[in-house]
Amino acid sequence: MKMLDVVTFGETMVLFASEAMTPIEYSNNFSKQIGGAESNVAIGLQRLGHSVGWFSKLGNDPFGRYIHKFIRGEGVDTSRCIYTDEAPTGIFFKENRSPNNIKVYYYRQHSAASLLSPGDLDEEYIAGAKFLHVTGITPALSPSCREAVFKAIDIAKRHKVKVVFDPNIRLKLWTMEEARPVLLEMAAEADVILPGFDEGKWLSGRNTPEEIASFFGNEKLVIIKLGEQGAYYRFGNEHGYVKGFVVPQVVDPVGAGDGFAAGVISGLLRNEPIPEAVRRGNAVGAIVVGTNGDVEGLPSKEELEEFLQGVRYADVRR
Amino acid sequence: MKMLDVVTFGETMVLFASEAMTPIEYSNNFSKQIGGAESNVAIGLQRLGHSVGWFSKLGNDPFGRYIHKFIRGEGVDTSRCIYTDEAPTGIFFKENRSPNNIKVYYYRQHSAASLLSPGDLDEEYIAGAKFLHVTGITPALSPSCREAVFKAIDIAKRHKVKVVFDPNIRLKLWTMEEARPVLLEMAAEADVILPGFDEGKWLSGRNTPEEIASFFGNEKLVIIKLGEQGAYYRFGNEHGYVKGFVVPQVVDPVGAGDGFAAGVISGLLRNEPIPEAVRRGNAVGAIVVGTNGDVEGLPSKEELEEFLQGVRYADVRR
Amino acid sequence: MKMLDVVTFGETMVLFASEAMTPIEYSNNFSKQIGGAESNVAIGLQRLGHSVGWFSKLGNDPFGRYIHKFIRGEGVDTSRCIYTDEAPTGIFFKENRSPNNIKVYYYRQHSAASLLSPGDLDEEYIAGAKFLHVTGITPALSPSCREAVFKAIDIAKRHKVKVVFDPNIRLKLWTMEEARPVLLEMAAEADVILPGFDEGKWLSGRNTPEEIASFFGNEKLVIIKLGEQGAYYRFGNEHGYVKGFVVPQVVDPVGAGDGFAAGVISGLLRNEPIPEAVRRGNAVGAIVVGTNGDVEGLPSKEELEEFLQGVRYADVRR
Amino acid sequence: MKMLDVVTFGETMVLFASEAMTPIEYSNNFSKQIGGAESNVAIGLQRLGHSVGWFSKLGNDPFGRYIHKFIRGEGVDTSRCIYTDEAPTGIFFKENRSPNNIKVYYYRQHSAASLLSPGDLDEEYIAGAKFLHVTGITPALSPSCREAVFKAIDIAKRHKVKVVFDPNIRLKLWTMEEARPVLLEMAAEADVILPGFDEGKWLSGRNTPEEIASFFGNEKLVIIKLGEQGAYYRFGNEHGYVKGFVVPQVVDPVGAGDGFAAGVISGLLRNEPIPEAVRRGNAVGAIVVGTNGDVEGLPSKEELEEFLQGVRYADVRR
Amino acid sequence: MKMLDVVTFGETMVLFASEAMTPIEYSNNFSKQIGGAESNVAIGLQRLGHSVGWFSKLGNDPFGRYIHKFIRGEGVDTSRCIYTDEAPTGIFFKENRSPNNIKVYYYRQHSAASLLSPGDLDEEYIAGAKFLHVTGITPALSPSCREAVFKAIDIAKRHKVKVVFDPNIRLKLWTMEEARPVLLEMAAEADVILPGFDEGKWLSGRNTPEEIASFFGNEKLVIIKLGEQGAYYRFGNEHGYVKGFVVPQVVDPVGAGDGFAAGVISGLLRNEPIPEAVRRGNAVGAIVVGTNGDVEGLPSKEELEEFLQGVRYADVRR
Amino acid sequence: MKMLDVVTFGETMVLFASEAMTPIEYSNNFSKQIGGAESNVAIGLQRLGHSVGWFSKLGNDPFGRYIHKFIRGEGVDTSRCIYTDEAPTGIFFKENRSPNNIKVYYYRQHSAASLLSPGDLDEEYIAGAKFLHVTGITPALSPSCREAVFKAIDIAKRHKVKVVFDPNIRLKLWTMEEARPVLLEMAAEADVILPGFDEGKWLSGRNTPEEIASFFGNEKLVIIKLGEQGAYYRFGNEHGYVKGFVVPQVVDPVGAGDGFAAGVISGLLRNEPIPEAVRRGNAVGAIVVGTNGDVEGLPSKEELEEFLQGVRYADVRR
Repeated sequence: MKMLDVVTFGETMVLFASEAMTPIEYSNNFSKQIGGAESNVAIGLQRLGHSVGWFSKLGNDPFGRYIHKFIRGEGVDTSRCIYTDEAPTGIFFKENRSPNNIKVYYYRQHSAASLLSPGDLDEEYIAGAKFLHVTGITPALSPSCREAVFKAIDIAKRHKVKVVFDPNIRLKLWTMEEARPVLLEMAAEADVILPGFDEGKWLSGRNTPEEIASFFGNEKLVIIKLGEQGAYYRFGNEHGYVKGFVVPQVVDPVGAGDGFAAGVISGLLRNEPIPEAVRRGNAVGAIVVGTNGDVEGLPSKEELEEFLQGVRYADVRR
Repeated sequence: MKMLDVVTFGETMVLFASEAMTPIEYSNNFSKQIGGAESNVAIGLQRLGHSVGWFSKLGNDPFGRYIHKFIRGEGVDTSRCIYTDEAPTGIFFKENRSPNNIKVYYYRQHSAASLLSPGDLDEEYIAGAKFLHVTGITPALSPSCREAVFKAIDIAKRHKVKVVFDPNIRLKLWTMEEARPVLLEMAAEADVILPGFDEGKWLSGRNTPEEIASFFGNEKLVIIKLGEQGAYYRFGNEHGYVKGFVVPQVVDPVGAGDGFAAGVISGLLRNEPIPEAVRRGNAVGAIVVGTNGDVEGLPSKEELEEFLQGVRYADVRR
Repeated sequence: MKMLDVVTFGETMVLFASEAMTPIEYSNNFSKQIGGAESNVAIGLQRLGHSVGWFSKLGNDPFGRYIHKFIRGEGVDTSRCIYTDEAPTGIFFKENRSPNNIKVYYYRQHSAASLLSPGDLDEEYIAGAKFLHVTGITPALSPSCREAVFKAIDIAKRHKVKVVFDPNIRLKLWTMEEARPVLLEMAAEADVILPGFDEGKWLSGRNTPEEIASFFGNEKLVIIKLGEQGAYYRFGNEHGYVKGFVVPQVVDPVGAGDGFAAGVISGLLRNEPIPEAVRRGNAVGAIVVGTNGDVEGLPSKEELEEFLQGVRYADVRR
Repeated sequence: MKMLDVVTFGETMVLFASEAMTPIEYSNNFSKQIGGAESNVAIGLQRLGHSVGWFSKLGNDPFGRYIHKFIRGEGVDTSRCIYTDEAPTGIFFKENRSPNNIKVYYYRQHSAASLLSPGDLDEEYIAGAKFLHVTGITPALSPSCREAVFKAIDIAKRHKVKVVFDPNIRLKLWTMEEARPVLLEMAAEADVILPGFDEGKWLSGRNTPEEIASFFGNEKLVIIKLGEQGAYYRFGNEHGYVKGFVVPQVVDPVGAGDGFAAGVISGLLRNEPIPEAVRRGNAVGAIVVGTNGDVEGLPSKEELEEFLQGVRYADVRR
Repeated sequence: MKMLDVVTFGETMVLFASEAMTPIEYSNNFSKQIGGAESNVAIGLQRLGHSVGWFSKLGNDPFGRYIHKFIRGEGVDTSRCIYTDEAPTGIFFKENRSPNNIKVYYYRQHSAASLLSPGDLDEEYIAGAKFLHVTGITPALSPSCREAVFKAIDIAKRHKVKVVFDPNIRLKLWTMEEARPVLLEMAAEADVILPGFDEGKWLSGRNTPEEIASFFGNEKLVIIKLGEQGAYYRFGNEHGYVKGFVVPQVVDPVGAGDGFAAGVISGLLRNEPIPEAVRRGNAVGAIVVGTNGDVEGLPSKEELEEFLQGVRYADVRR
Repeated sequence: MKMLDVVTFGETMVLFASEAMTPIEYSNNFSKQIGGAESNVAIGLQRLGHSVGWFSKLGNDPFGRYIHKFIRGEGVDTSRCIYTDEAPTGIFFKENRSPNNIKVYYYRQHSAASLLSPGDLDEEYIAGAKFLHVTGITPALSPSCREAVFKAIDIAKRHKVKVVFDPNIRLKLWTMEEARPVLLEMAAEADVILPGFDEGKWLSGRNTPEEIASFFGNEKLVIIKLGEQGAYYRFGNEHGYVKGFVVPQVVDPVGAGDGFAAGVISGLLRNEPIPEAVRRGNAVGAIVVGTNGDVEGLPSKEELEEFLQGVRYADVRR
């Protein structure tokens, strides 16, 4: 069996984006894309030159096939995807009045992905990876999904696969009261934790990046995303702030966190010093928000290198 | 309270139509419309000059509001619509490879409309109408919907409101075995029954329009839709075939049956002789299939009169 | 007869918006919306929970029906709308090179709405309202429209209906010389006057908000719109500035003034103190410019409350 | 001054075509084209290799400039076009439910072109042509347009320029009673008359192509268009039927008559025998209806030759 | 190394399809798809459940990546694709006035794929397949492509891989005089030959299916495509006609031949009797022409089974 | 022969612009425009009221005809355009992630325009103009194009036609090493040189506007474009900075330099003092970047006058 750098899994949905910057109620035209935090990370890593596997349970319908083909087309290993006739593929609608005013409407309750369960995991597949990436979305989908996440983490730990955990708190799926104990349990098992600043505050009840990082403990790599300001990291005695990149025009803020995760994991796979890996995360995030779509803007290895070296495309030379 | 000519209720969904004649998996652009058998009939009747009330349970979301506004905009009374936060508005996707090859994909399980229940009915509202229109779709949505349909029929019968029943068998919602007893019970209560030929065969187990009509009994008006051939009707001793209209180009076959129902009920409200009412149904159905969309092609009173008098728009005089 | 909170009337046109940010001469694709100051206000008020009636004279054509259905769909009472075969529904084109460079091209001369005349007014309908809203556009459309406006004001005053006047000077319809005496006569009759700062200067010949307000007299509520700065109000001895809201990205500046009017009238209907009502006007205006279209962005009561309490949608939590 | 083969003039409007095959009331998207019988003929002739001048009075607005640029771009001489600030360029909307059901909605009353008057004619320009082409649309636009048409015909006759007259009866612009005497007067002055069969019947009160042709007199070339059947012609003692071409799929029937006129005039300019010229007219008409748009399908000289020689594009060889 | 059922290679281009049925000169909007005979066959076979490899030389540009991702997404093995910086990916434009009038415009001269050369072939990869599929397009692209095709055939023959040859004569790429000797040489090496009837006539100089089949010799399986009539086959002493399927509405004729090839090869892989394999080819071709796009309509195994058993989607049961 | 104010020539291509702000690889829809530095300048000058001739060698295909018709439609003299069957019209794709991130992909190698050669020049045509405008793009296209440029300059100089040279360095077409000697030779022959600041530095090896201008010599008018800062000019002893205009929102930066050239040449044709001509260039450039497209935003004489006098369209008065 081919060894993969990273394995991740979770629900990817078909995203219908309103084509006009107007409330969805008045939009007449919608375009079809895909959206899913874990597949965003998988595609981001693949594009940066790593080998990645992603899987989910998909509806045996055109939308399930579309997701599968899109992600497989990107070069991600999708051989562990499972189709079901029992539920349709989850979808959602994205309303974009302006880059400052984005809302989403889900049709994911009772979706195919919510039927994912521990029995769907291939132990050998996970065991062969260097990193397992999990998010706080999956345990919110259903009890069987929650069990699957913890089983996957358990497999990883037994096989010395490092676990990267991105909280991705989704208050449309569960309340903070429901979410906190589950996410803290995930955090406790993880080797790398990537909360946003607000997420860190909510989970820890503390107020500064330093305090939040301490809350999660010294033996883990904790990286707290600070938006345009960059990020704060702590691992044992190492800690510090890594400045963000200036984004001249935010076109679409969605996907920044997933791009950050892809950049950081890529840096870790390359055995970069932590501040370098964090800078890589900042860079991927900054590139992503300058392009429409969750995955469309994820940079190739070459694009990322150019960006890190300061090349910008502001001047047009045909 | 204002008296209405017709009251109907049932699930109307937002319809996302693939803009290219290609499998939905490969479609990139979708347009937003509405679709629902009962609201099609309501709008059809309203446009023909009758007063109509339609209601449903709608999700408290942009799609629920869109449906509500669209139907209210058409002049249909929507004052009995109910919003719920407990479930989203049902939606579906329509794949149109050619007028001969149309498929639909539903996201209506656990929808807002499936939560409709007997307690949501306003007895006085139904009691004040001349006709109650019900379809065989509603009882397939949920047990509470089934109860609501039978309660509505019961209200109608107690108040001498005539019941029009259109079987509208949907094998994506239930099996024939589940459907048959329920639909036969509805038919037994109805005053007017409007099956398609295939539906009539399935429900009655008989093979000719005459036999099917007899099966449902002599005291009811039974009209069997025969597609391009027109329709067969029977009411007591009256019976006969009414020829259909030639449609030079079928643009979209969906909605023909609902247009037929609107035309027939309109004829009955106008106290036309049965063959005239059936001809009216044939005409509305023929007009509808010459236009894209379920409701867009429903004719106004004036357009229907022109059509019945033989005016066609084949020659263009700017 | 049902009592309405507000009655308004005037021309609403079909708006064809160029879909590309390019001069209309080079635009290939246009989308269909509606535009009209009075119907904007009507829809804005309806969405904030008030009962509103709007009417106009519409062409008996698809565009007239579209306008009617759109506004009726929003829940506004349109029972007093009149159709005519004598003239087509007015339309206009909107060229949007950037939010800073918007032009419009009218096809409204000799339109159906310009045929509106005093005989089209239903005295009882106006008399039953709490407010009559009129704009300075209507008298510019035709002599009969001018007479209709003054007759409506006269009806209002005889029945103690408060008159809200928004100058809405349109130099494409008449010159300042033609406009000034008419608008000043309307202002003289009004209880509430809502000029923009420039409009106030042109009408009064004075240069500061304070002077302009004084010009219109102490017994009226005068509120002068100051754009992003907010507004200045004066009523008897009460007066002051009310700060505007910060708009992170102006998507479409059109409709801000109508949203302001809806917000202010809503506050007055709620018996709010004047500064609160003005703040409500500022808020609706700020929300509207963050969304494309004249009416699409008008907030519901709940959205307005959230906005007033400081909720913004900058962070996306799917 | 450069001598032109043909001069024509009349109103060309911007055409907004509904992009969906649905009633215009429900269409959300419109594309911009141009439409005008005389400019269709001008472009058709230009594409067949003749030199043509077309002119009109255009609004000094983006739509006037668009029309001017489009027709000038095609190589037609537009040097005699006149701009006015007094009225806007006429526009119209085209509803296309199916190729069998097309309707148009005009905004051309009081248009710039309706202001065309005898003073706008350049005598030398008309006098230098071999043919003057006029239609029965122009005299329906306004009294000054009517005068301009008759003055142009008068100029032509004084300078031995042959007059081609296409009745193009537009019952949306005037009644048959108004139209008949004017069109018969034009026919009486014309050298070549190109009525459709129905038009011929209405104008002559006779019922067969032979009788209609006789009605207009022996000294003129009369060609009666018979749709798919082809055409009947009579000139002195020469007469006969010319069979039409089979059109495998009519995509858009609009513009067929103008294509026919272009083909016939082209044949006459090439001094072809009359049946050959008529066959050329039939061919251009047949090609045009196989393509969307009024002018887009007009063939080049080479395409027409291929078509006349029987080349079809049914088989695709990439 | 994984054994594949079929290996094929050749140029796939990005296809820009005019969205309106109008000449490309007047089209404003184009949609992006892919087109390539060999990848059509590859995707067709993959969808029918076989394992397939396809490769080409792609430009190192967005269009090359798009093609690669699309085909990989479909599940075809693309591991042997090669990127080059020396030339761009070939593209073409498709003008669709009606299903009877389709033209293409190529930008493929000097394309990346034309740089394919014998050195790019992986002998082991080809040797491991059951079938090698080649078309007459590839040798027309460049001398190095021609050499590559013959080298691939040579590899196949040495390793007992059966060679399927589809002539696919493209007169835009070379003349018949240039094409004939090359294609006959390919035919001489092939085990299965799939000419269209016209192609068969051109290559053999004979006039009936029987004579054409004889021309290519008895030891090969020759199947001559007869369009709607079906196909004629001959292999040794076996021969006969296999009737085609009725297509109610041809939406897009392009891709029928590639679908036919996929169906036939699928039948051969399943060891079906020849007439069954030909019928399978007829069926896939018939399904493809009922859908827009070259590959979008290629059926899954299940769809093909339904079609062969007579299921049609004419009646809509939501 | 009609005397023209300016003659220019060079490659204009069809531009396919991605309609979504997303990488071209993921764009599904493209719109068709034209792009070419010399035709941009020609159209810019024509719109400002000057007479201009532009020519190129065009493919005898729909794209060649589209370019020809577009530019002729604008009123530019295109009588010297030449069609060839030997090569297709060049095209390119424009990826627009944001106004700060624009890339282009060319299909112009071996294009029709690259076949332009000295024999295609009409000496009399060039000799009759007041200015010849040439860019540094043309000599990069092919050796024959390079010869044509130098022959045209030679004709101009012999006939006292002033030569305007815009370097327009395109590093996608040649390297700086290839470009420098050619462009310096062109500069040496020119009367007016219009480099961007970076271009000036690359060509001269100097670092300030003053030094760069000196490098090119005192007897020429050198104007160095400084982006938003405006421009620096030097002619003999005259020199100075001319401030740029504030652009509230850059919609599309492409075409600014061509607009600048059109404005400057217009000023020179009007015999304005140099600083005035430069200001005119600044103004046209500023207007162009506020509109999408290369030529769509080029102002008419009237629009330019309004802009120079400070009129902005920020406030909308319908």
